[in-house]
Amino acid sequence: MLGKFEVRTDLALEAHENYEEMATPPHLRSAASRAAAGDHKTRKHGENSGIHGVRVEEEADEEREIYITTVTIETENAAKAMGKAVGTYITIEAPNMSTPDEDYHREISEELAKQLDVLLDGRKDSVLVVGLGNREVTPDALGPDVVNNLRITRHMMKEYGRMPSGMEASGEISAIVPGVMAQTGMETLEIIRGVVGQTHPGIVIVIDALAARSTKRLNRTIQVTDTGIHPGSGVGNHRNAINEETLGIPVIAVGVPTVVDAATIVNDTMEELIAEMDRQDSMKMLGGALGTLDQAEKHEMICKLISPYLNTMFVTPKDIDETVKYLSYTISEALNMTFARDCHRETGC
Amino acid sequence: MLGKFEVRTDLALEAHENYEEMATPPHLRSAASRAAAGDHKTRKHGENSGIHGVRVEEEADEEREIYITTVTIETENAAKAMGKAVGTYITIEAPNMSTPDEDYHREISEELAKQLDVLLDGRKDSVLVVGLGNREVTPDALGPDVVNNLRITRHMMKEYGRMPSGMEASGEISAIVPGVMAQTGMETLEIIRGVVGQTHPGIVIVIDALAARSTKRLNRTIQVTDTGIHPGSGVGNHRNAINEETLGIPVIAVGVPTVVDAATIVNDTMEELIAEMDRQDSMKMLGGALGTLDQAEKHEMICKLISPYLNTMFVTPKDIDETVKYLSYTISEALNMTFARDCHRETGC
Amino acid sequence: MLGKFEVRTDLALEAHENYEEMATPPHLRSAASRAAAGDHKTRKHGENSGIHGVRVEEEADEEREIYITTVTIETENAAKAMGKAVGTYITIEAPNMSTPDEDYHREISEELAKQLDVLLDGRKDSVLVVGLGNREVTPDALGPDVVNNLRITRHMMKEYGRMPSGMEASGEISAIVPGVMAQTGMETLEIIRGVVGQTHPGIVIVIDALAARSTKRLNRTIQVTDTGIHPGSGVGNHRNAINEETLGIPVIAVGVPTVVDAATIVNDTMEELIAEMDRQDSMKMLGGALGTLDQAEKHEMICKLISPYLNTMFVTPKDIDETVKYLSYTISEALNMTFARDCHRETGC
Amino acid sequence: MLGKFEVRTDLALEAHENYEEMATPPHLRSAASRAAAGDHKTRKHGENSGIHGVRVEEEADEEREIYITTVTIETENAAKAMGKAVGTYITIEAPNMSTPDEDYHREISEELAKQLDVLLDGRKDSVLVVGLGNREVTPDALGPDVVNNLRITRHMMKEYGRMPSGMEASGEISAIVPGVMAQTGMETLEIIRGVVGQTHPGIVIVIDALAARSTKRLNRTIQVTDTGIHPGSGVGNHRNAINEETLGIPVIAVGVPTVVDAATIVNDTMEELIAEMDRQDSMKMLGGALGTLDQAEKHEMICKLISPYLNTMFVTPKDIDETVKYLSYTISEALNMTFARDCHRETGC
Repeated sequence: MLGKFEVRTDLALEAHENYEEMATPPHLRSAASRAAAGDHKTRKHGENSGIHGVRVEEEADEEREIYITTVTIETENAAKAMGKAVGTYITIEAPNMSTPDEDYHREISEELAKQLDVLLDGRKDSVLVVGLGNREVTPDALGPDVVNNLRITRHMMKEYGRMPSGMEASGEISAIVPGVMAQTGMETLEIIRGVVGQTHPGIVIVIDALAARSTKRLNRTIQVTDTGIHPGSGVGNHRNAINEETLGIPVIAVGVPTVVDAATIVNDTMEELIAEMDRQDSMKMLGGALGTLDQAEKHEMICKLISPYLNTMFVTPKDIDETVKYLSYTISEALNMTFARDCHRETGC
Repeated sequence: MLGKFEVRTDLALEAHENYEEMATPPHLRSAASRAAAGDHKTRKHGENSGIHGVRVEEEADEEREIYITTVTIETENAAKAMGKAVGTYITIEAPNMSTPDEDYHREISEELAKQLDVLLDGRKDSVLVVGLGNREVTPDALGPDVVNNLRITRHMMKEYGRMPSGMEASGEISAIVPGVMAQTGMETLEIIRGVVGQTHPGIVIVIDALAARSTKRLNRTIQVTDTGIHPGSGVGNHRNAINEETLGIPVIAVGVPTVVDAATIVNDTMEELIAEMDRQDSMKMLGGALGTLDQAEKHEMICKLISPYLNTMFVTPKDIDETVKYLSYTISEALNMTFARDCHRETGC
Repeated sequence: MLGKFEVRTDLALEAHENYEEMATPPHLRSAASRAAAGDHKTRKHGENSGIHGVRVEEEADEEREIYITTVTIETENAAKAMGKAVGTYITIEAPNMSTPDEDYHREISEELAKQLDVLLDGRKDSVLVVGLGNREVTPDALGPDVVNNLRITRHMMKEYGRMPSGMEASGEISAIVPGVMAQTGMETLEIIRGVVGQTHPGIVIVIDALAARSTKRLNRTIQVTDTGIHPGSGVGNHRNAINEETLGIPVIAVGVPTVVDAATIVNDTMEELIAEMDRQDSMKMLGGALGTLDQAEKHEMICKLISPYLNTMFVTPKDIDETVKYLSYTISEALNMTFARDCHRETGC
Repeated sequence: MLGKFEVRTDLALEAHENYEEMATPPHLRSAASRAAAGDHKTRKHGENSGIHGVRVEEEADEEREIYITTVTIETENAAKAMGKAVGTYITIEAPNMSTPDEDYHREISEELAKQLDVLLDGRKDSVLVVGLGNREVTPDALGPDVVNNLRITRHMMKEYGRMPSGMEASGEISAIVPGVMAQTGMETLEIIRGVVGQTHPGIVIVIDALAARSTKRLNRTIQVTDTGIHPGSGVGNHRNAINEETLGIPVIAVGVPTVVDAATIVNDTMEELIAEMDRQDSMKMLGGALGTLDQAEKHEMICKLISPYLNTMFVTPKDIDETVKYLSYTISEALNMTFARDCHRETGC
């Protein structure tokens, strides 16, 4: 329907909103979309999704300004409707996530560690963390930056059977930054599958920069899912999926939207322009010019105007360097907490 | 007129096109704009500009695919009309500038060295090169990257009176990467003015990443000008100008557009959409809906739809890391050639 | 006396030990040197220095394993004897400073903030922090890395009169990473003097990597002094001093020894070898071979054997990347604490 | 014999010199060692080695100042004697290799490409290049830096069957920078074995920073060998070998010595000191003090004096950042030449 390009989002939350929007009459859409994209006050907590096979649960910690939405896609039909795989998608939203504070938002690290614990379900004996993305492109460096600050333990546990005194860990943590295809000539999946085959981790956690549909979501949302990831979706093309099906072991993905596709942003604004004109027309005169164009004709007109150059471009904030630095600390701290946690609980070390 | 945001370009060539476009009736505009932005076959060489006080000269090297446009703004009135300072703006366009080749496009380095020589006019005894921009943000790292590959000679000439054997230089070359205000807390101008006051160079060359209006110009255009620069215009806000007026010595600026403002790209596409609808309306029915809106009302509608978030965002290609790497080699090589050149010519060293 | 090269240390603590060692009979020297270089149990606390005009105070926090030595050089004669300028040198030693822990050794940051407060003596209205060193050479990147994590406030205070809500600062903090002479062609002093002349800070804090005499001191010692610094002494040649005399405003220097000069390490081990042989000789036979060589002849023999290449080399640990990362967090955190502190105390903001 | 530490060199050329030195009477040793370590004028070309099963061939290009030594270890006995595996070791020495020049020493790139062609013997259909080492430690970043400038083609050939127009390649080139064990928790061998198992290259080329015995060899020597490599030997511990035996496909290693082990440099200078004293003794008096110590006692004395800290330290030049930058260009250019070459020769593409 949308012609030459795809309105893309890596966030299940946005995919869900898109779906609801499609079913919304045009004259209500703009408001619905605004409500969906960030205005928490208008959302009811714990509401059920309108799509069959999709469960949506919301939770708000108003004091710490952290909002959790859990989207569970339960059936293949729902997966098709949403354009997202069957599984659980936990979204942590915090408006001030990328503003600097003294301890890199420890409260968000704690919340993320809590949600990771839910999906890991105790499987922390041997974890491979993969920092996806291109460390040379600022908004795509999130994965590599997170890996830079992880406490790596596998080699020490292999050599000494435990961590040096003063450090704690519940299991063997290893990590790799595979790079992107333009740098390696290889699919990321090939590299990870090779490493998994040699080092036999029990579970993989991939960290990646994502693409959102709306600039309002950028750098204030963390998505955690047990469905894995499509590498390159952050700022590049879709590549072979990295998930339990392709790796043979569970894959948890942690992502933050740091870019919006340039074509998406232009398309969305033009759609709003047309909707706005429709509204004005209908107020000003019945049977206005746009009334004579159907939905398909409108989309065709938009597609014609979107420069083919835009499909290879992304939109990102000017202070993305600071933002990615802060976000990567917040996430690596959450992972370090998660990996050290069992230790306290069980062995009391 | 355009409301909350400014359609911004750092390229005099585009400013000139914008001006011509404003004077073009709407139904012709889209074609004019397309012709202006890159289709060299439709441009006449050596034509005069339509604006009084602006001279435009074009030169094409079809074999090497290098196109030179020299825009000379001669009067203050013309400067006001163009929104650019009085002075000379040389634009080197080469469609394949950022595609990798064996010697980092030595033919473009040679052309740039030639144009620099025109503006330097022999003033190479003591040159301070300033690499503007934020080395942590990929499309803004051009200036710092160029400085990384320069042959710095001032300290050796101060100590030994000449360069070590095997290296050549016509003068004392020094360089600084001042960083951006979020990193330093200082205006770039303050830092450069301080350094100039202490080290007394005869001329300053600033290298910066620029913002273009059109994605078609990105990474295929080098602008050289004797009017200096407004730092931060690449991906940030306008700051105190760096030019002969503020530094007290001549300032030559070398820039490559690596980003487009996100708001600009959205605005431009929407303007084209409205123009397109006007055309369709006029064909389909006389007195259509849009006919009832005047230019100002249309702009207001667009401004309302452009998210305020977009003003802090930029658009850049996904392979910007490779592009900036190649472009910075091309430019640093041109500077190294320029600085070594006199030597050969005059002293035969 | 030592011939072609200088046994170099940037630490006043080591300069003091060297002095004491020179006055120690050879057969006692090795033990004295060992005691001096790190064995805190053998040192008395609060002892007075043997040199006239030098006061040494020691303080130990056994629980947190932090040891503070304050060397005060009070007269020009003492300064000559020590080879260090008149002023106060505070050394914070902590054996586990560069081993990773959860909060980057907040206890050391707190101690450093306390000592900085002593030397700053309330002068925090307007501070320029200078990150000396070469960010491309790992052990020399300490200064640039510290600046990377500072909370910069000057530009915000100039624009808004205060910091954004949620952040605190007692004054205008600005920062610069001037680079090294091979990169800029300029003396670091020229750059800093220029910046100070334009932006008028009340005080300068320089951060630098230092050279120690002993590998035992590396990465476990922070020196804070009100005497400024000689840039390049970390891993290069002595350059124009950066101090109150050359800048016209007070200069506090914070340094961590991250390298030992290669020639120093070789010289010191050979001196110990000769001393050892002397001891063995004297035990085995009276009037042995080495007895016939005087001190000067021994030094000449050593100098002849030290390769001239060694004078351009440094010694550093293999895990220097991790170490510099951790140390730079510890120091930047201390500075951030210091700058935010007054706020709490005085204005209660 | 040498006690707690090993005098280490990754260069077969130095291993060969060490062997010859061991068989040299002490009073001749210093001169022999000096001759061996770089004074080309005293070396005969084409001479045979004194060790059975080791062939040494020398070749000098006096005009371009490039010297090639090929050491062939032919038997397991010779391998044991030399401490190096059976195979061919080609050493390219060029005194000015790391001094900057206009084209990054294209003459050395050409020589290296020629030698690589000898060892590759046409096997260029599918090559995996591995950049070993730690990109965060300057002298160890050589491998990662070389990979940064390689022309990667595998993904394009897989997708389009050939390279984009304007670029040439004889085969599918892929590359990986695996990182070091402290960053990944995995043996480098595990990562490479995994990647090889998934992507099936025909041959592997590993690039690594090496440790030399003598500072005189640093940054002026390239070793190319068909025996593979021991990762981490550059600036870390020995790890599982990367060679045909462990990977199942041929492995060519390209290395440049960028560091000397700190303990090695101290040991060697002390050995020279003892030899020097022996000589002085013998001149001054027969049966001097040192005459009473045998070789083993002397070594024990040295080992006692070498600080255990030194075993975790390396020695490297102060301008190592510039040096590694230049060397990595020289090597990546050689690889790009090698991979593009066949194309011209055979298929004329």
